[in-house]
Amino acid sequence: MAVVVRTYARTEQSILDRYAGIGVATVHEAQNRTGLLAPRVRPIFDGAHIAGSAVTVSVAPGDNSTIHVAVEECRPGDVLVVSPFAPSDAGYIGELIAIALQARGVRGVIIDAGCRDVQILRTIRFPVWASAINAFGTVKETLGDVNRPLVCAGQLINPGDVVVADDDGVVVVPRLEASAVLEVSIARDDREAAVRQRYAAGELSLDVSNMREKFAQKGLTYLDDEADAP
Amino acid sequence: MAVVVRTYARTEQSILDRYAGIGVATVHEAQNRTGLLAPRVRPIFDGAHIAGSAVTVSVAPGDNSTIHVAVEECRPGDVLVVSPFAPSDAGYIGELIAIALQARGVRGVIIDAGCRDVQILRTIRFPVWASAINAFGTVKETLGDVNRPLVCAGQLINPGDVVVADDDGVVVVPRLEASAVLEVSIARDDREAAVRQRYAAGELSLDVSNMREKFAQKGLTYLDDEADAP
Amino acid sequence: MAVVVRTYARTEQSILDRYAGIGVATVHEAQNRTGLLAPRVRPIFDGAHIAGSAVTVSVAPGDNSTIHVAVEECRPGDVLVVSPFAPSDAGYIGELIAIALQARGVRGVIIDAGCRDVQILRTIRFPVWASAINAFGTVKETLGDVNRPLVCAGQLINPGDVVVADDDGVVVVPRLEASAVLEVSIARDDREAAVRQRYAAGELSLDVSNMREKFAQKGLTYLDDEADAP
Amino acid sequence: MAVVVRTYARTEQSILDRYAGIGVATVHEAQNRTGLLAPRVRPIFDGAHIAGSAVTVSVAPGDNSTIHVAVEECRPGDVLVVSPFAPSDAGYIGELIAIALQARGVRGVIIDAGCRDVQILRTIRFPVWASAINAFGTVKETLGDVNRPLVCAGQLINPGDVVVADDDGVVVVPRLEASAVLEVSIARDDREAAVRQRYAAGELSLDVSNMREKFAQKGLTYLDDEADAP
Amino acid sequence: MAVVVRTYARTEQSILDRYAGIGVATVHEAQNRTGLLAPRVRPIFDGAHIAGSAVTVSVAPGDNSTIHVAVEECRPGDVLVVSPFAPSDAGYIGELIAIALQARGVRGVIIDAGCRDVQILRTIRFPVWASAINAFGTVKETLGDVNRPLVCAGQLINPGDVVVADDDGVVVVPRLEASAVLEVSIARDDREAAVRQRYAAGELSLDVSNMREKFAQKGLTYLDDEADAP
Amino acid sequence: MAVVVRTYARTEQSILDRYAGIGVATVHEAQNRTGLLAPRVRPIFDGAHIAGSAVTVSVAPGDNSTIHVAVEECRPGDVLVVSPFAPSDAGYIGELIAIALQARGVRGVIIDAGCRDVQILRTIRFPVWASAINAFGTVKETLGDVNRPLVCAGQLINPGDVVVADDDGVVVVPRLEASAVLEVSIARDDREAAVRQRYAAGELSLDVSNMREKFAQKGLTYLDDEADAP
Repeated sequence: MAVVVRTYARTEQSILDRYAGIGVATVHEAQNRTGLLAPRVRPIFDGAHIAGSAVTVSVAPGDNSTIHVAVEECRPGDVLVVSPFAPSDAGYIGELIAIALQARGVRGVIIDAGCRDVQILRTIRFPVWASAINAFGTVKETLGDVNRPLVCAGQLINPGDVVVADDDGVVVVPRLEASAVLEVSIARDDREAAVRQRYAAGELSLDVSNMREKFAQKGLTYLDDEADAP
Repeated sequence: MAVVVRTYARTEQSILDRYAGIGVATVHEAQNRTGLLAPRVRPIFDGAHIAGSAVTVSVAPGDNSTIHVAVEECRPGDVLVVSPFAPSDAGYIGELIAIALQARGVRGVIIDAGCRDVQILRTIRFPVWASAINAFGTVKETLGDVNRPLVCAGQLINPGDVVVADDDGVVVVPRLEASAVLEVSIARDDREAAVRQRYAAGELSLDVSNMREKFAQKGLTYLDDEADAP
Repeated sequence: MAVVVRTYARTEQSILDRYAGIGVATVHEAQNRTGLLAPRVRPIFDGAHIAGSAVTVSVAPGDNSTIHVAVEECRPGDVLVVSPFAPSDAGYIGELIAIALQARGVRGVIIDAGCRDVQILRTIRFPVWASAINAFGTVKETLGDVNRPLVCAGQLINPGDVVVADDDGVVVVPRLEASAVLEVSIARDDREAAVRQRYAAGELSLDVSNMREKFAQKGLTYLDDEADAP
Repeated sequence: MAVVVRTYARTEQSILDRYAGIGVATVHEAQNRTGLLAPRVRPIFDGAHIAGSAVTVSVAPGDNSTIHVAVEECRPGDVLVVSPFAPSDAGYIGELIAIALQARGVRGVIIDAGCRDVQILRTIRFPVWASAINAFGTVKETLGDVNRPLVCAGQLINPGDVVVADDDGVVVVPRLEASAVLEVSIARDDREAAVRQRYAAGELSLDVSNMREKFAQKGLTYLDDEADAP
Repeated sequence: MAVVVRTYARTEQSILDRYAGIGVATVHEAQNRTGLLAPRVRPIFDGAHIAGSAVTVSVAPGDNSTIHVAVEECRPGDVLVVSPFAPSDAGYIGELIAIALQARGVRGVIIDAGCRDVQILRTIRFPVWASAINAFGTVKETLGDVNRPLVCAGQLINPGDVVVADDDGVVVVPRLEASAVLEVSIARDDREAAVRQRYAAGELSLDVSNMREKFAQKGLTYLDDEADAP
Repeated sequence: MAVVVRTYARTEQSILDRYAGIGVATVHEAQNRTGLLAPRVRPIFDGAHIAGSAVTVSVAPGDNSTIHVAVEECRPGDVLVVSPFAPSDAGYIGELIAIALQARGVRGVIIDAGCRDVQILRTIRFPVWASAINAFGTVKETLGDVNRPLVCAGQLINPGDVVVADDDGVVVVPRLEASAVLEVSIARDDREAAVRQRYAAGELSLDVSNMREKFAQKGLTYLDDEADAP
């Protein structure tokens, strides 16, 4: 019932590093609009942008003992992903755990629950994406699992998957698809860079992406007089 | 069913510019506590303050095609106002559309739905008031209308109406009342400036606004001993 | 029905001042995880940290007349605590009341309802913890009580109690326990300072707090092969 | 500011009566998926199904005085539609008002706010669709308008529009489109009756509605072995 | 920290019994619109109506051990009132506890948290007002208090207070005011009975309660032509 | 991207039938408080109780085309489990689909989204557990998958898993554990039957389950005088 899996494949560091410059929206589109965690999981400060290999932690509601267990399993480049068995917005993550994680090279925490000591976490710039900010404390009575498949904020996350997080939210990419999705993401970013120039120069997406004919076929009608509207 | 109305009256630029310095709370009070959008519509960064002429856009849930259509209709001084037919918090507005709007002189976007790429929008200082931050993407299959009367976050907005937005939220003023409400707003601001001085100097609103007698008549009672309380 | 209690014991200024450096999470733990207001009450800007003696104000929904009455009762070191009889997120607190409170030395406002003029309140650095930001105005028809026991965001608060607020939220400490809880809080902070050093140096909480044996007894199992997991 | 409009066109009784047998979902589809009120507005008992001509009432938050004014304006076949200026879930409608409305032949109430005395309303079978059940009382200080255009639960409703409500929710049909939408609704119901028979006999919508080819073109793939899935 | 207070005054059975026929809305109005619990606390079946003397129980989030302790403290005519230290919607109350409470003559349970086994509770007609229906189980590790002052769904409740609950929700009356509030409630009910007759006969509240003049003074205006509206 | 897996193992009918008499709360406890779907998924009528083998369906937000595809895959004893890629409460399931499913022997539908035509579904007694009742219609443009692993209301569900649903909510049991969990559930039910008798006879859980000593060790204290409380 309380298991720590110690042997599993992480996504390679070189792949993780290339993800770090790519936005969550881009990655989400690159894998066909999948993998996005529910938008209730928000960063505790603006401007953080990380990518890491998931260490998954299931916790009992209101109990952070399993997070203490998980710290030992973390390596540089990891991201801790925490989800309670049942909804609970207590503050499972605070200053002390953040310092311990930072000392081990962990890039951040994703938690579908509460975080506290946020004033300090902002000062030490340890990024946490949480569904609540809440000082309410936890107990240490009931253990969950570390590095087992985990549903967090509506997405299935396996240990070793890529997790990317920025101000838009959090997206997960399955480890075996990490390389392919990365290439699609980069290609998409390149394509958008070209488009961005044209839009900034005043061109319209209707023209750049040839939408006019398609929309006309769908019945789009331009009226000079509102009185003609149906 | 998918109509773009091209001929309608905008609020004059000179009136819009005078609104820009006036807070949303003041405008809302000046028109007798009406016109305020639901408070779920929040700015994606602090400190923005805009006033513009509304371009109204109804979108199908999870579909941003009509926004692409609307960009072409925008002129300097406009504000894009977007509402889906049914609640949906996908990310309809992102970097590319923002750049296209900014290139056309649009002052900002009001959307009762999601926005994404917020890290970039903050950098380029393009203000969006949205009811969610969400990277979830949209499709381009079903068209809505541009510049037809629109209900957005609980308020009826017509194309050409004045929209004022700041950190408190968003308020709409009907175009034909724009001038009158502006005068009341300015008068209110002037009155408050005088009161502010007196409060800062330690005077009480009970005295400045003569509330003491009214409240005494309503039965307000001062007790020295809590044991006398009912 | 509308009573202002003028004689009650405040927590001593010297105790309040020593609380100001202590985080909400610490105080909450120091009194056995009690006293925390519901996390919907959030600061309107980051980085504020106050402790004060509660002035309690009950208001009718959508009516801020009692707040005007309460201003007169405030002294330096006080914190205004406001709760409506029934849920209502109108904007009861704005610039003018904030200036009046600031002029009297009030350290901040806690309100389980809405606040407005936040752009200005951020500029003058008057901290408010509120459950909504909302420009919607209030009337002045129905009076509530000042300095009577009050339930605010789920906690009972008496006039003169200590209220501590920071970016994590708000906690109340009963006046008669203020001194004892302060000592426990300081002791806890000191203990954590020592632990922080050890974590930063790479030690694990599993070792520092001797959790390994306890968790093993609870059945924690380490697996090298996921296939062995239940 | 507080206006009762007494002269406006109601939808004809004969049209209203024909709507009464048609479900909300059907009417909503018949007008191209528009007109549906937000689903937070729920019936206080199951099985009611009404159609009526809207009497629109805007109320101040927490104040039901305008409802008392509106009762006098009601005639048999009307439905009272109530929306507060700002969200507020107090109990604006209770037994006494229900009895007064029932005495005037009103078919029910739609309110984007609270209702109380529901045990009695269920007994007398007076149907109310409300966004809350709440005993919290209201005051009688501030008046709103009767029979002016009103936004209720996200939809614009004009006096005299058709309102249809059943266990699925509430939909509004503009008065001038009432007849046309009725014909489309009836045609749709007839079509569905035929389809219902075929489905009940085991036929598939894929065949009845010829979806197979369209879906194949969209790339739908049938796999016998999950291992072949992407 | 975990205390059971055994000696306290209950409200007399004779008073409780007279409350049982009076609606929650009436009681709430009779004590000046105070004492109503938040409307998220809903009955698990329609038609129950109880009044009892409160046994107050604070529970740790996700832990129902204190409820087991509280059962022993209950006597016929009591109502169990349960609130967790922090929001948590697990299922603290189920069939077994209900049967034990029923065996001791307890009239029902009020809980600002979850209830389960509702199919059975409906069958045995044991009424529970809960803020969630949720099968999620609880542990038995951390104790709270029994019969200490408790905040439940926003209201302060003391052991021995009167709790009245029906389909509208739940209201608390302080024990020492139980008799006085009862008289006001009964008088109010009598008054409403007379009014009900007049409304059913077609009289208007505008006339019965003399509102016409008051509303005219507030500026209420009747228009025959909408075009005259402001 | 749009895949229907046709070959997978269902849970045996004989096991499903034995689950049908067992409550969701019992099954959830029998597998160590796991597998429960979020409590927002509620039955559309009281008293339904089903167990079936999951057919999993992922749908695009606001698009029910994949449900039409899934109907063909269903056999007697199945339960359809539907989840949109992103939160969306449109009405994906209505009368026609229900009739088609009923014709194929499907026992019910679990959907983390909206359902409509509930008046009819109640009449034909086709049970649906949904997170919303909403008449808002869907389109048929974008396909999802059938019988691939699915996250629904926070739980991972594989095709062929057991789904049990009653008035308390919905729980999933992995197919390979179906038999073992069934035995534990039955044993638990038997144990509770014995306890139920003792509670009904007035015995206390404190005694039946020997909690007194454990709670005393945790510091539980009985006071005759509240004044002695801390």
